[in-house]
Amino acid sequence: MPTELKIPKRGFTPAEFERRTQRAQAIMDARGFDALLLTAPPNVRYFSGFDSQFWESPTRPWFIVVPREGAPIAVIPEIGAPEMALTWIKDIRTWPAPRPEDDGLSLLASTIGGLKRKHGRIGAELGREMALRMPVVDFLKLRDGLGSTIEDGSPAIWEIRMVKTLAEIDHIHYICQLASDAYEALPSQIAIGESEREVVRKLRIDIARRGADATPFMPAIAGPGGVAQIVCGPHDRKIAEGDILFIDTGSTFDGYFCDFDRNYAVGKVSDDAHRVHEALWQATEAGIAAAVPGAKTDDVWRAMAKIIEEAGAIGNNVGRLGHGLGMQLTEPPSHRLGDGTVIVENMVLTIEPGMEYAPGKMIVHEENIAVTKDGARLLTKRAPRQLPVIR
Amino acid sequence: MPTELKIPKRGFTPAEFERRTQRAQAIMDARGFDALLLTAPPNVRYFSGFDSQFWESPTRPWFIVVPREGAPIAVIPEIGAPEMALTWIKDIRTWPAPRPEDDGLSLLASTIGGLKRKHGRIGAELGREMALRMPVVDFLKLRDGLGSTIEDGSPAIWEIRMVKTLAEIDHIHYICQLASDAYEALPSQIAIGESEREVVRKLRIDIARRGADATPFMPAIAGPGGVAQIVCGPHDRKIAEGDILFIDTGSTFDGYFCDFDRNYAVGKVSDDAHRVHEALWQATEAGIAAAVPGAKTDDVWRAMAKIIEEAGAIGNNVGRLGHGLGMQLTEPPSHRLGDGTVIVENMVLTIEPGMEYAPGKMIVHEENIAVTKDGARLLTKRAPRQLPVIR
Repeated sequence: MPTELKIPKRGFTPAEFERRTQRAQAIMDARGFDALLLTAPPNVRYFSGFDSQFWESPTRPWFIVVPREGAPIAVIPEIGAPEMALTWIKDIRTWPAPRPEDDGLSLLASTIGGLKRKHGRIGAELGREMALRMPVVDFLKLRDGLGSTIEDGSPAIWEIRMVKTLAEIDHIHYICQLASDAYEALPSQIAIGESEREVVRKLRIDIARRGADATPFMPAIAGPGGVAQIVCGPHDRKIAEGDILFIDTGSTFDGYFCDFDRNYAVGKVSDDAHRVHEALWQATEAGIAAAVPGAKTDDVWRAMAKIIEEAGAIGNNVGRLGHGLGMQLTEPPSHRLGDGTVIVENMVLTIEPGMEYAPGKMIVHEENIAVTKDGARLLTKRAPRQLPVIR
Repeated sequence: MPTELKIPKRGFTPAEFERRTQRAQAIMDARGFDALLLTAPPNVRYFSGFDSQFWESPTRPWFIVVPREGAPIAVIPEIGAPEMALTWIKDIRTWPAPRPEDDGLSLLASTIGGLKRKHGRIGAELGREMALRMPVVDFLKLRDGLGSTIEDGSPAIWEIRMVKTLAEIDHIHYICQLASDAYEALPSQIAIGESEREVVRKLRIDIARRGADATPFMPAIAGPGGVAQIVCGPHDRKIAEGDILFIDTGSTFDGYFCDFDRNYAVGKVSDDAHRVHEALWQATEAGIAAAVPGAKTDDVWRAMAKIIEEAGAIGNNVGRLGHGLGMQLTEPPSHRLGDGTVIVENMVLTIEPGMEYAPGKMIVHEENIAVTKDGARLLTKRAPRQLPVIR
């Protein structure tokens, strides 16, 4: 049976949204923006609390404008007005969508045009690890017709979102604990000879049963002593004696992700696989220990890379050893040389050492942490040092 | 127990991908494009067969280039190479991502630069019902440095994807049938007093158990005699005597969506609700009958709108009465006045009449059809004419 976990209250208080907005406004002003124009689901939700699965429909754009002073404004299709009215947002402007000849564009332009100007610059989701959720032709039309210039606001947006509030961390902690329990229970639910796809179906159902809202990400793959990649699958391949079964999940609770994996020995696996597993377990310990306020992401990378190299890594196609997470499965920063992000309190990070130790044989570990003033606090239940066995 | 449905073979044959490519190339040439540049998950998968849930990570862009002659080229992060190698794509070019200073841009530019030129124009996902999945600043840099111009390729892409292959229709039919069975079984699984959220959890689990891969979309809402909106929820509200319980789902099988709703009477509902339900059932019949090759989406709208108006509609914030579907929950065309799309064989469409008959009381019906030369073929199991009752 599911462990009894304390379920965080869904949603966030108006006071929290006010604090988020005020902090954002200070960052915007320091970076010379009069407003942020937001179109992507996590950014809209971060400032409004608006929750919908209707993002799956690409037909209509939605906009939140966060001005340098005052409260955020929603500029949205009529279909979303009743639900947006339940959030803390008071200024909701709608148009009857879809309206191909003007899908919100004139309403958005007049909204931005009505804002107080200081810097003459608007920040939009134009840069790294972001995608603008509106037609680019409409964006360029908006940009060219506006009195202000529109520039890349993504460094500002990531500065805002990279440091979590305690309520956000509570959400992430809950989904991490829930998924940890499901991972722990998995060996009792599956057996040698089942397909990767069946394994994923069982784990998905168990995670839903335990209280997750959704599981947008659950790659699973098994291979003799390790796997060739860690972001695709499941396939119909049956798990077999000697395999390492790798499963990762980004499941969500109330808009927040966990992102961590677990590895299982299918029957008896090679000594090499056990040795590499132990090295990665140690590398994870080193990464967790290195993630302290004031350290850089480069330092966290170095702490893990040293152990991985000593263990005989021949490669790692992942390109980094962990990253931020929160309302998205992966967020900045990246644990990699040259990233240079200074770690501060209340960042939430993955610690993700991985290595290919023989061609096509990769093993990757992953835990999620929150940074406190005293160092990392584990949000996941630590993976067992010995590989759990599927029989 | 789940009904025994025939499960379609996963994936598509190389011959099918060749036909898709050849048809796309004819459309590209007619529209004056030397290539299509694709970044969004459904477009990448449509031409390559590449399946991943890793799209949840916004860190790395991925590209497929479909040239006017020859086979598609994948330009992707190293992390995706082993899985892309399992598809029919032979020309796979990778870079070690993330690499902020050049995340695939130079490799993409040289790939496009190496193509044969006839029109001097590249089509990209810049227009309606599309979002470019790469940083806009990178896109603008690419555009400005390229020998060819990049223009809006979305009308071409939608022309390609709007008409389905028979194998695609088989996929959609399967997920429609599976979800139909789950909807039908729901009244035996839930009871008055359960929350909208509990109802959704049970239905999600049942749909997974029956064989769906994922349920990215399942809004549910209940209200006395009807609901205020149909795209958000569930909430913690408990379903109560006199409610109409509305549930919609976009669940998927092997990359293809169903998108249809069902309505339930919670205990005894008002005569008005029964009357409007009957009118919408009739409107659905009329919409299905109108969706014949040669008709326009406007005609399908008119056939439904007449019945809805006669039944006393005071509004409908959805803005249309149905749309295309396939690899996305909603795709062009739209059943609305002015859409003007001529319906042809092998389009897959929703028939979605809805009306607000009193303030805050909306009822919406929805079925999915494939267009054959003889008219609509129902892909869903037709909703019961009488509202099923939750007790």
